[in-house]
Amino acid sequence: MDLGIDRQAHVPVVQQIVSAVVQWIRESGVSPGTRLPSIRQLALDNLLSQSSVIEAYERMVAQGLLAPRQGPGFVVAQPTTSHECNWYEGAEREWGVFADNPLGELKLGCGWLPDAWRESDDISYAIREVTRTDTAGLFNYSTPLGLPALREQLLKRLTQIRIDTRLDQIMTTAGASHAQDLLIRTLLKAGDSVVVETPGYGSLYRQLAFHGVQLLEVPRTRGGPDIPALEALLLAHRPKCLFIQSLYHNPTGTSLCRTVAERLLELAHRENFLIIEEDVYGDLQHASCVRLSALPHDDRVIYVASFSKTLSSALRVGYLCASKAIITQLASLKTLTGFGTSRFAEAVVATLLANGTYRKWVQRLRKRLGTEMTATLQVLEDEEWEVFAAPAGGMFLWARPGAAPSTLLQAYARQLEVLVSPGQLFSPSGEHSEWLRINVAYAADPRALALFRAMGPARSTSTILKATSM
Amino acid sequence: MDLGIDRQAHVPVVQQIVSAVVQWIRESGVSPGTRLPSIRQLALDNLLSQSSVIEAYERMVAQGLLAPRQGPGFVVAQPTTSHECNWYEGAEREWGVFADNPLGELKLGCGWLPDAWRESDDISYAIREVTRTDTAGLFNYSTPLGLPALREQLLKRLTQIRIDTRLDQIMTTAGASHAQDLLIRTLLKAGDSVVVETPGYGSLYRQLAFHGVQLLEVPRTRGGPDIPALEALLLAHRPKCLFIQSLYHNPTGTSLCRTVAERLLELAHRENFLIIEEDVYGDLQHASCVRLSALPHDDRVIYVASFSKTLSSALRVGYLCASKAIITQLASLKTLTGFGTSRFAEAVVATLLANGTYRKWVQRLRKRLGTEMTATLQVLEDEEWEVFAAPAGGMFLWARPGAAPSTLLQAYARQLEVLVSPGQLFSPSGEHSEWLRINVAYAADPRALALFRAMGPARSTSTILKATSM
Repeated sequence: MDLGIDRQAHVPVVQQIVSAVVQWIRESGVSPGTRLPSIRQLALDNLLSQSSVIEAYERMVAQGLLAPRQGPGFVVAQPTTSHECNWYEGAEREWGVFADNPLGELKLGCGWLPDAWRESDDISYAIREVTRTDTAGLFNYSTPLGLPALREQLLKRLTQIRIDTRLDQIMTTAGASHAQDLLIRTLLKAGDSVVVETPGYGSLYRQLAFHGVQLLEVPRTRGGPDIPALEALLLAHRPKCLFIQSLYHNPTGTSLCRTVAERLLELAHRENFLIIEEDVYGDLQHASCVRLSALPHDDRVIYVASFSKTLSSALRVGYLCASKAIITQLASLKTLTGFGTSRFAEAVVATLLANGTYRKWVQRLRKRLGTEMTATLQVLEDEEWEVFAAPAGGMFLWARPGAAPSTLLQAYARQLEVLVSPGQLFSPSGEHSEWLRINVAYAADPRALALFRAMGPARSTSTILKATSM
Repeated sequence: MDLGIDRQAHVPVVQQIVSAVVQWIRESGVSPGTRLPSIRQLALDNLLSQSSVIEAYERMVAQGLLAPRQGPGFVVAQPTTSHECNWYEGAEREWGVFADNPLGELKLGCGWLPDAWRESDDISYAIREVTRTDTAGLFNYSTPLGLPALREQLLKRLTQIRIDTRLDQIMTTAGASHAQDLLIRTLLKAGDSVVVETPGYGSLYRQLAFHGVQLLEVPRTRGGPDIPALEALLLAHRPKCLFIQSLYHNPTGTSLCRTVAERLLELAHRENFLIIEEDVYGDLQHASCVRLSALPHDDRVIYVASFSKTLSSALRVGYLCASKAIITQLASLKTLTGFGTSRFAEAVVATLLANGTYRKWVQRLRKRLGTEMTATLQVLEDEEWEVFAAPAGGMFLWARPGAAPSTLLQAYARQLEVLVSPGQLFSPSGEHSEWLRINVAYAADPRALALFRAMGPARSTSTILKATSM
């Protein structure tokens, strides 16, 4: 099979392979079960490294386009509805849809920033600096709580956002998901019940479900969890924890208002539950904001954050902040289940925090996101989409078309080569929803604009049907 | 407090702080509960960075020398018996004793190589190379199974050691402990029983116990697990798994013989259990060797390894190899509980494997360890210590003094400033044992030689008692 790879092109080789294979599957009309050329053969035919072919095939498997055979090799997969991933269930769905995109589809519903927005010079500098100056960082295990030099920088950051804590209450983790995993294993047992916001982060629902925890759903309003609904759940179930994203909530983009925050803390005190406040988008603010961890909370709030959404997802550096008693248990479990986090990665992040690079970086990021947010809100208003709430920061908007039903939207998005995040990904039960998560960092693309326009009220259903040839 | 820090000395500053504080505690005769100078004050008084003081204090806490106060600051800890750690129980014990050593004690019982044995130029080169050439590696999430370029190198290595596997059966992890954690969570539930070797790796016992799994102990003989004892356990308990280190077993240094290996595979097939074969010391061989994963095993053996013992503990790169069905479950849990491993670290290890650096590195390491092993065996023979078995490779020897009881040995080791690993660390129930784990990489030090000599049969108990002033 000749893939027509162009080594001068700006598109990475792996992506070119994926595009060419996807095109071959579509155009040749092969049936599911048809065997693909072997990795070795495809690499030979196209003068490619085998690892590029492997990476391309694996991405297609994760996206449900190919399936592994019994025995070596891959076959064309059974077609699935929409962009669902059929190999790894659950947590991989988001990765499968958005980590790569065949044919260079626009990742409008993606949970992270475009590669082009990241800044590689600064991070390369910090890596070289650590490599040159910190030999221990290349070899040694980290300490149970994480590298002190990083935690000292984290303490400064936390103090700036008015979180009153101490060095021995801060522990590093390999990202926020790892922090949540340690918390779930330490604080909860199978059969316990917890409150989660809906819509909310699908991976968290699945983490909790894996642990056998019962999920109680509280609706997310514009100002935070719906208090009367929460009170009813507390009364009926006596849950152990509430999991919340206070700022730039995924997927609604909303932030906690002060009245709701104070009420939550009163309830936590009175009804004796803990609050896990996840703040992975917290550095993307351009407005004053309310964090539960920054209010007096009597050790009832545990704070979780990471650098994956701003600095790098590849380094796997996150952290949490809790009472000394809980930190001691978490540090024990962290060491037991992984012998600590990467001292090297922690030294790199510490360098970027200490030399001011990170601060400047997020300042630029906020400004850029703010511009895109304003522009996207304007377009959606013009096209008469319904927006759940105008966010005060972050990267997400929660919106639905004014007229057309979501099935039409998905078909049209596929035709425009736009990947969307339908509302059911943000419901514990996968309940159908007309809402979409929109990442404003991708929303200025002409394909996004075409989608917004096509789903506006001016277009009749028949026009869309015609456009999507349904 | 003036610590008398010498910036020209070869001893790292953090270690100098620890030594000075420990000396102050010993010499000033302060009582437990006495408050230490604040981090800020100690840093100011000695022109040190606060992070150095924090790191020093935390090491002392992990070693049970200091304790955190209620409120900020630290106090002198209640003295504990021997070098037990009293802050983080369990998994941190090994870290607490060996990660750093006040007063530059000799880490004779340590589970890893001395810093001076590691080679920083090669790893620095690979890090710079990845930073320069793989921008995606600086930012992106990895794929669920781990970076294909690394897994391709791992496949080559596994093929060389005759493990018959495929790319989609290899998954990366953040070290071997992380691999074990994923396996335990995927394969076992609370109340299940598993067979572990005794003596064996204490952290594994605690990982299993944390998960509520019942440990059945099979004695480790010179050639592997004791088969009649294992058969009795299988009959009585029908365990789900056997956890084993086939090569250079921790702590005995023994390796599996072919007869035992074949018998284990027969039993696994007949009695329907899985074998988890951990091979973290496997690259340190200088003899032919028997791995269960390299024999026909009908998907009954899962292989676990890592680069922490050879290349770097700081990068956190390990891997495992299992049937496709198990890999799919493991990949799902890995993504769910941490959103993948570090793409950057995996790219660094892939570079070192691909350019041949790793191969040359372990060759040198084997040669050096072989020399030290031979020399240590000779010394122990001269001093009439009992050696469990002469290892065919690796870094560990399991031995006990010919004459003196272990309580005397521990007292004398303390006086010589030698840190030992007493046998009870390698028993699930912490049972008393006269045996010691000796890491030959530290055994040529005059303090080790003095210890071996003092515990030889030529010295009478009264001489030792006199020497240790007991």
